Amino acid sequence: MNHYKIGLLGGGSWATAIAKMMVDAGVQFSWYMRNESAIEYINQYGHNPNYISSIEFHTKQFKLTSDIDTVIGDTDIIILAIPSVYLLNELGKKTVSLEKKIIFSAIKGIIPETGSIVGNYLEVHHEIHYSRIGVITGPCHAEEVALERLSYLTVACPQKKYATYISQCISSHYIKVKLTKDIIGVEYASVLKNIYSIAAGIAHGLGYGDNFQSVLMSNSIREMKQFIKTIHKNKRDVTESAYLGDLLVTGYSTFSRNRTFGNMIGKGYSVQNTIMEMNMVAEGYYAIKSAYKIAGDKATKFPIIEGMYKILYEKKNPKKILKKLTERLD
Amino acid sequence: MNHYKIGLLGGGSWATAIAKMMVDAGVQFSWYMRNESAIEYINQYGHNPNYISSIEFHTKQFKLTSDIDTVIGDTDIIILAIPSVYLLNELGKKTVSLEKKIIFSAIKGIIPETGSIVGNYLEVHHEIHYSRIGVITGPCHAEEVALERLSYLTVACPQKKYATYISQCISSHYIKVKLTKDIIGVEYASVLKNIYSIAAGIAHGLGYGDNFQSVLMSNSIREMKQFIKTIHKNKRDVTESAYLGDLLVTGYSTFSRNRTFGNMIGKGYSVQNTIMEMNMVAEGYYAIKSAYKIAGDKATKFPIIEGMYKILYEKKNPKKILKKLTERLD
Repeated sequence: MNHYKIGLLGGGSWATAIAKMMVDAGVQFSWYMRNESAIEYINQYGHNPNYISSIEFHTKQFKLTSDIDTVIGDTDIIILAIPSVYLLNELGKKTVSLEKKIIFSAIKGIIPETGSIVGNYLEVHHEIHYSRIGVITGPCHAEEVALERLSYLTVACPQKKYATYISQCISSHYIKVKLTKDIIGVEYASVLKNIYSIAAGIAHGLGYGDNFQSVLMSNSIREMKQFIKTIHKNKRDVTESAYLGDLLVTGYSTFSRNRTFGNMIGKGYSVQNTIMEMNMVAEGYYAIKSAYKIAGDKATKFPIIEGMYKILYEKKNPKKILKKLTERLD
Repeated sequence: MNHYKIGLLGGGSWATAIAKMMVDAGVQFSWYMRNESAIEYINQYGHNPNYISSIEFHTKQFKLTSDIDTVIGDTDIIILAIPSVYLLNELGKKTVSLEKKIIFSAIKGIIPETGSIVGNYLEVHHEIHYSRIGVITGPCHAEEVALERLSYLTVACPQKKYATYISQCISSHYIKVKLTKDIIGVEYASVLKNIYSIAAGIAHGLGYGDNFQSVLMSNSIREMKQFIKTIHKNKRDVTESAYLGDLLVTGYSTFSRNRTFGNMIGKGYSVQNTIMEMNMVAEGYYAIKSAYKIAGDKATKFPIIEGMYKILYEKKNPKKILKKLTERLD
């Protein structure tokens, strides 16, 4: 079915899940990951040894390489599925230009070094025009893709032909895709939801219950709506799956790393100890700093983001901050 | 603090939780329940032997009786907290009139005999004017009230003075109250959420995962919005706690009876066997029939309600109906 050549960048859970979607949709694609032994393993055994190894691939449908230039050079549309914390480092390896490419980001997070969402970063640092940037998002745990459990993704791009094309490349009996042009809205939603998931974790860690959780989530979606509106005013319905659905799948999941991160903070661990204990930084941690900075003098209008910033970056007492926050919710 | 005399009707979990709220707010009230031995027990030991028995009362703050006339006759504001399936039977025992009373319904369900929400029933069958009807709702498991976990209720009444008064009667360090005039909206929300909770249970029982659950919930809130709009057009934000919060606390709770009911249907039990096994009928079961009837020839506009009706009342195959439903969601 290809008429655009597709390249996938990344070797983690989400990249592996997207590779499965494309294999099952019958797409041929190039696939970059840095880990050469993982490449050898996948080529030999047909599954990723490190991430979601239950996914079995028809390896004839992709060409794996640890040379990022090959993938970028040979393809028209590139899907970025590298965790945001490694993105600059990985893109730093390329010597060919991204300029003429169409780039779909499947990254859910703020780039720590620039404090920006991926779309902005591509526009500013790689001179990729807004119209050639897309986003793949949705309420979707990679683990459930492996199990072929029905999931709904949203593909956003100002140019519908690219969104439609990518949609065809990932659709199957277990993946349904909705299209939108609201790339800024859905990308911010996918970043902000991690902040609210940390908040849910902190509340849980402090002993707040299910009644409060539901109130926190309904306040979160309203805060998200206001926040995105200040950045990009647009008619959008935040009860759609790319906004509310994505918030819920993260905020209610006990497997969410952001929620787990928050839970440990709520239970009294310091940020440093939580990061050490989890052996990673939850994406929402960077998102909080960036969102707080973007909000600037309007930060008080976003009490959940503001509260999370005070807890994680000003080392304020979580119990006291949450207590104050409860006065702002309804 | 009383200047209106308050009567509480009901002896179940939710009535017991509301009694605790009023005791903790320092309110004096009359309390009707039909079970005389429970009354004796509460008066002697300070807790309800049958429901949420962990709640300990200062029994001096209420006067318990099994004579419904006493409570209705002696009070200005009556709080109804009788499960909807028993309401007609219980109100049938009274010989005094409700006509001059202000009535707040804390009942979340359709009255099976009339197929109507409680507000409608009171207006039609007891000639109580719309302006003297109120609703107490919110995302709130009674069990968490017992634990004094922070919960947010919504009190609705066209006359603000009554809503404010009831709000003061139930507020405490663990109960916050929001006021609204949208009694029809919040009452329908509290009824419809049970339908969506059954749908969530059926999906879970059939093996759908968390990704789908989040999509189902975000479609549910949109369907709820459309449904309520056809009944009572009004400016309302369904992401508020009384709508979305209430949906989430029920739809995500594994303790929800409606979700459990749906789960058994999804796993292949018949409606009859599910009712026998649970030894009760989930409120959403009646809500589905009533909502489907209200929707009439517009039922196809509400695919979740329609699907649930087909499964539960037309005995259609849950797997096939859910499959069809997934084509209607996004």
